[in-house]
Amino acid sequence: MMTTENIGPGLIEDSVGLVEPGYYTFAEPPGDLPLRCGKKIGPVTIAFETYGSLNEKKNNAVLITHALSGTAHAAGYHSIHDRYPGWWDLYIGPGKPFDTNRYFIICSNVIGGCNGSTGPSSKNPVTGRPYGLDFPMITIEDMVRAQWHLIKHLGIEKLLAVAGGSMGGMQALKWTIIYPDMVNSVVAIATSASLSAQGIALNEVGRQAIMNDPNWSGGDYYTSKPPDAGLSLARMIGHITYLSDKHMHEKFGRQFMDSDPSEYDFKTSFMVETYLHQQGIKFVDRFDANSYLYITRAIDFFDLKKDFNGNLINAFENVSANFLVISFTSDWLYPSSQSREIVHALRVNEKNVIYTDIETDRGHDAFLIENPALKKNITNFLMREFEKISSQ
Amino acid sequence: MMTTENIGPGLIEDSVGLVEPGYYTFAEPPGDLPLRCGKKIGPVTIAFETYGSLNEKKNNAVLITHALSGTAHAAGYHSIHDRYPGWWDLYIGPGKPFDTNRYFIICSNVIGGCNGSTGPSSKNPVTGRPYGLDFPMITIEDMVRAQWHLIKHLGIEKLLAVAGGSMGGMQALKWTIIYPDMVNSVVAIATSASLSAQGIALNEVGRQAIMNDPNWSGGDYYTSKPPDAGLSLARMIGHITYLSDKHMHEKFGRQFMDSDPSEYDFKTSFMVETYLHQQGIKFVDRFDANSYLYITRAIDFFDLKKDFNGNLINAFENVSANFLVISFTSDWLYPSSQSREIVHALRVNEKNVIYTDIETDRGHDAFLIENPALKKNITNFLMREFEKISSQ
Repeated sequence: MMTTENIGPGLIEDSVGLVEPGYYTFAEPPGDLPLRCGKKIGPVTIAFETYGSLNEKKNNAVLITHALSGTAHAAGYHSIHDRYPGWWDLYIGPGKPFDTNRYFIICSNVIGGCNGSTGPSSKNPVTGRPYGLDFPMITIEDMVRAQWHLIKHLGIEKLLAVAGGSMGGMQALKWTIIYPDMVNSVVAIATSASLSAQGIALNEVGRQAIMNDPNWSGGDYYTSKPPDAGLSLARMIGHITYLSDKHMHEKFGRQFMDSDPSEYDFKTSFMVETYLHQQGIKFVDRFDANSYLYITRAIDFFDLKKDFNGNLINAFENVSANFLVISFTSDWLYPSSQSREIVHALRVNEKNVIYTDIETDRGHDAFLIENPALKKNITNFLMREFEKISSQ
Repeated sequence: MMTTENIGPGLIEDSVGLVEPGYYTFAEPPGDLPLRCGKKIGPVTIAFETYGSLNEKKNNAVLITHALSGTAHAAGYHSIHDRYPGWWDLYIGPGKPFDTNRYFIICSNVIGGCNGSTGPSSKNPVTGRPYGLDFPMITIEDMVRAQWHLIKHLGIEKLLAVAGGSMGGMQALKWTIIYPDMVNSVVAIATSASLSAQGIALNEVGRQAIMNDPNWSGGDYYTSKPPDAGLSLARMIGHITYLSDKHMHEKFGRQFMDSDPSEYDFKTSFMVETYLHQQGIKFVDRFDANSYLYITRAIDFFDLKKDFNGNLINAFENVSANFLVISFTSDWLYPSSQSREIVHALRVNEKNVIYTDIETDRGHDAFLIENPALKKNITNFLMREFEKISSQ
C-alpha cells in the first residue's frame, strides 16, 4: 500500500512517498451494518490508506480520523505528478509527529463520504442507481462503527491512538466511549462534545445553499449537471468559519484584485472574494453535494451527552484512554471553551488529560497547517503513550 | 405627518402614535443627482418620516440613519392594526432617548433601498421599466448626499445630531466629513470606518446566494417570480452575524422544535434552524433582492480613509461635530476594535469624543433592542448637545 523507497521528482524527502488507497468491503447481505437511525446498510466499502508498518506486537497502530471535507489520503502522494500531498502530510511521515518510522498510521474515508467509502453517491444495491437521498442518515457513531470493521480487518485489537481535528476529534472521542478497550489514547484537536447553536446555524445555511440549487434536484443529480453553484457557496460559507477575522485581515485586508477600481460593480474585486470563489470552485471538483448534506447533519446531531442523560461527565465514566486535548485561541467555530468542557468532564472522572490552548491567529484550520506547538504536543504525547504501552 | 393624539388600541403609550411617510422628489431632469461612480440619476425620491416638531430656531433636528435592512419607518405605527412599531421605536418617542417632546426626528430610506426611496426596483425613466441592474452603483456618500437634499428641503441648516447603528453609523460619520458645517454632533453605534475582510466575505456569500437563485434572472425579475429563496438565504446568513455565539446558545442551545427526534433528517428540526428560516421568510416579504445587492456593496466599498490617502486621522481633520461612539462587547461583525480605531483618529485630531464599549451578549443587533446603557448614553449626550447649542 506504500512504497517509501519510491520518492520521485517533486516529492519532498520527509514524505511517506507514493501511496495508494486500499478498499475493504464488509457487511455484505444479509450481514448489513446496522445504523443508529434504525436502518441498515450493506455492502459497505471503506477506502483507507496506511503508512508505516504494524509491528509484531500490533501495538503501534494510530487511526487518523478526518474532518468534514477530508479523505483517506492523509499523507504522501498518489502520483509523482501530484502537486499536493495528502491533507495531513505536515504531521504524518518519517520523523513527523505521527512518525511512520515508529507507528502504523491508518486513515479511512468516513461512510457517507465521497472519496471511496460508501456514501450517497454510491450505488444502491436495491435500485442499481446512486443512493442520493435514499442513503440513510448517518451519525458520527456510525462512522466509528464502520471504522471498527476496518481496524478488526487489519488485525488490530487495540489502537495506540485515535487522532483527529474538528469532526475527526468527534470520532476520536466517540471511539473511547463505544470501544473503551480498543483505544489506548486520543488526540482530540479543535473539537467539541456537541456543536453550538451558531455552528448548527452555519451548517444549515450551507445545506440550504445546496438545496436551493435547482441542479440539486432533490439529491438525484448523478446523471445530470450537479449542484456546483450551491456546493461552491456552501464551501465559501464554511471557509469563512475556518479562518479567524484577524487572519483574514492580515491575509487579504481590503485589497483589490486589480488596482483600486474607480468604478466598482458586483463582479468579484476584493481579494478575499476571489479567494473564496476559488475555494468554492476547487471544492466542487472533489466533493459530492449530498455527502456535504449528510456529513454536516451528522456533525449537527453529534452530542456525546445524548446517551448519558445529557451529562457529559457520565459519558466519559467508562473510558480508559489517555487524552491530549488541543484547542486554538482564535477558533470561533469550535471555541476553546468547548475543549475545556471536555477536559473538565474527563478530569472529574479522574482520567489522564493533557490540555493545551494553542495561541494562534489561524482559526479553526490551524490544525491543518504548520504549527510547531501542535507538532511538539502530538510528538511528545504519542512517544510517551508508546513507551508506556511498550513497557507493559 | 404625525398625529400624537391619535394613539389607538394596541398602541403603547410612549409611542409617537400613528405616523405616515412623506415623499420628497428632487433632481428632476436636467438636474440629476451626480453619484460617486460618475453616473447621474434622476428624478430621486426620498421616503421619510418625522416625529416631534422643528422648533423656531430650527436647532433641534436629529437625522436617524438606518442600517442595511432599515426603512424610513423608525417609530410609531402606520395603522392601529400594526403588530409592530417602527424599527427604532424603543429609542424614539416622548421621553425616550430621541425624545420627540424635545427634538424633531427625521428618518429617511436610503437611495438604493426598496421602501419608498429610489432604488433598483424603481421605474427607470429611460425605459419605463424597473431599473434592475441598470441602477447605478451607489455609495454611502451618495446616500448622504441624497439625505442632504431632504434636510435642505425641510429648511434645516444644521442638524443637532446624525445618529445611526451599523451602516447608519457609516452615514453619520460621512455626514461630518462632507458637510462639516451642518452637523453639530454624531451618535455612531456598532459601526466602522471600513468593513473587515471577514465582513466583505460574509456580504459576498449573501450576494452569491441571491445571484445563484435562477429567479434572480440577472436582476430582471420584477415581472416574474422574485429570487425569494436566494434572498431568504442571504438574510439567514446575515442574521447569524447579527447575533453572538453566546446569545444563540442561550436562546436556542441545541433544542429541537419537537421532542428529541429518534430519527432525524434534513428537514428543519433544531430551533435555531427554524428561527433562521422564519427570519428569511419574513424578510422576502419586505425587501428587494437587488436592493440587498446594492446596499451590501455600498457597505463593502465604504472606506472613510479612501479620500484621505488611506489615513483615517486625516479624514477627520476638518470635522467640527462632537461624537458619541458606542460599540458592543459581543459584536463580532463590527467589533469594538473598529470603534476604537475611529475614536483614536478623532482624539488625535482633538475632537470631542465620548466612547463607550457596552457589555452585552446580544451581538451586533444590540442597538435594536432594549439596552439601558445605550439609552442612557444617547439621552445624556443629546441633552448636553442640545443645551450647548441652545445657549449659543
